[in-house]
Amino acid sequence: MQGTKFTSGASLEADAENVLRAITPTLDPNRHKGQAGKIAVIGGCREYTGAPYFAAISALKIGADLSHVFCTKDAASVIKSYSPELIVHPVLEESYSVRDDEKGVISGKVLAEVDKWLERFDCLVIGPGLGRDPFLLDCVSKIIKLARQSNVPIVIDGDGLFLVTNSLDLISGYPLAVLTPNVNEYKRLVQKVLSCEVNDEEAHEQLLSLAKRIGGVTILRKGKSDFISDGETVKSVSIYGSPRRCGGQGDILSGSVAVFLSWARHAMTDGDPSISSKNPATLGCIAGSALMRKAASLAFENKKRATLTTDIIEYLGRSLEDICPVQ
Amino acid sequence: MQGTKFTSGASLEADAENVLRAITPTLDPNRHKGQAGKIAVIGGCREYTGAPYFAAISALKIGADLSHVFCTKDAASVIKSYSPELIVHPVLEESYSVRDDEKGVISGKVLAEVDKWLERFDCLVIGPGLGRDPFLLDCVSKIIKLARQSNVPIVIDGDGLFLVTNSLDLISGYPLAVLTPNVNEYKRLVQKVLSCEVNDEEAHEQLLSLAKRIGGVTILRKGKSDFISDGETVKSVSIYGSPRRCGGQGDILSGSVAVFLSWARHAMTDGDPSISSKNPATLGCIAGSALMRKAASLAFENKKRATLTTDIIEYLGRSLEDICPVQ
Repeated sequence: MQGTKFTSGASLEADAENVLRAITPTLDPNRHKGQAGKIAVIGGCREYTGAPYFAAISALKIGADLSHVFCTKDAASVIKSYSPELIVHPVLEESYSVRDDEKGVISGKVLAEVDKWLERFDCLVIGPGLGRDPFLLDCVSKIIKLARQSNVPIVIDGDGLFLVTNSLDLISGYPLAVLTPNVNEYKRLVQKVLSCEVNDEEAHEQLLSLAKRIGGVTILRKGKSDFISDGETVKSVSIYGSPRRCGGQGDILSGSVAVFLSWARHAMTDGDPSISSKNPATLGCIAGSALMRKAASLAFENKKRATLTTDIIEYLGRSLEDICPVQ
Repeated sequence: MQGTKFTSGASLEADAENVLRAITPTLDPNRHKGQAGKIAVIGGCREYTGAPYFAAISALKIGADLSHVFCTKDAASVIKSYSPELIVHPVLEESYSVRDDEKGVISGKVLAEVDKWLERFDCLVIGPGLGRDPFLLDCVSKIIKLARQSNVPIVIDGDGLFLVTNSLDLISGYPLAVLTPNVNEYKRLVQKVLSCEVNDEEAHEQLLSLAKRIGGVTILRKGKSDFISDGETVKSVSIYGSPRRCGGQGDILSGSVAVFLSWARHAMTDGDPSISSKNPATLGCIAGSALMRKAASLAFENKKRATLTTDIIEYLGRSLEDICPVQ
């Protein structure tokens, strides 16, 4: 079976499908739009439009009610053209389109635009297709500070990891921050935070101390098995998975973790005893990882080497229904 | 059978399906994003947007992890809208948008943008939808020189062939260059390099001396049968194929050859004895030709006269799986 083929680290293995079932809300016709989740992706610039689309559409395909994207003007019309389901805000700016003497004013405008919406969101995904423009990243730093002030959870991936790895204060000590590094992003984090190289002999201890050192953020280290730590515990998710490594899969994961993290927080405020003592960020990572790995395995069974990220997204709904059928 | 219907030149016929199997990497869950190939297409201007899309998406459908396109601003938003899977860089410029006194500066900017990325790519495809704007072609000449300096393989098709036929020094003596001329592009090459007309009585000898005269580049002469020579040997690929000649099929081929050429080079550095003595450019052409011809034959069986390039692209994955199943 696909599921067992890539399994490892069984001792730490999370009961991922039960976690997913525990935090996924039952669909209740008395609920109204927004109660199943409002997600926003901060990303999309002149070069990148696919990544923020993948993250935002994945959130909807899992069951979020509303999915927003905050990107540059260049990216906005393209991202809108991928899907009419998304709400796309062309508010970010890159250096090439801003005169130095305007930067203060424009940065203020960008912040005001995002701030208007911020408290309506259950989670932000920061980084997919963000790029590395200094002025844009400076605005995003300020957005992260705003989100923290409002206690809005943040999932950070891609160029967002480039930003926070160089400015750890942005997320240090914020328990509602999730980092989802791939092999290279993890390497840079370890070098920056622990001043050493990645040590796969003591992978779990290193991940644990990395998360602890950054002050209790949750880290999802992506790989053959995914490893998750908040500085207190380490869990692995090894079920399903695919050997295909096409770009964009990390964006599906970041959008998925955002939704499940939001659901886990709601489940706790609803006082679900089975998870009340757990960290919602960790639960969100476990559920997001499991769903992504199942969707990827189903897409790969069907498309083999030709599997692309859009194929995987098409299996998110069926994967969720297989694990957690609608009552 | 479709396969035999267009067969010829059996004596030179390559064992194409075995070549394809020998160079296609096994999928290993320990690998990470990028290791199965990073391709870039240089092309896409005010008039042409389909060709670079076909080349770039074909690379992904065959199994490359990342596929980039470097094109003009006009073309970028359209190519992005075809697929969120591609990374599209709006960096090329055409004369109509550049004042004479700006040309030096802008040419420098274009080169800097491409150079930033160049060493990350396993292969460039130069020419699909490039157009013939003098300023744009002048920038592309400089990109070819950069690629040579970095030893990045180049597959040249379409308007890229127009460029190098008129400036043979750009590729002369570069063994990592592949030219994929159709009947007319081949005619111009023969006239320019051998100062004679195409002679189909001595087709193989002529192809051989053409490749030798350009200094050991590999030439894939497209036709009823495809003929491939690096100046040392001549091989033909006649299996499968389709009588449909809709525009765009050459773009699929150029993207496919780029991926297989990259894989052949990796297989050699991994020391695969079955191919260690061969020319990776030749192997890439043989595999690309075979896969393209199989996908075209499957699409034609299904769509007959209505077969379009996008239909053929949809059969790339199944064709690869038929020839070289995932373990």
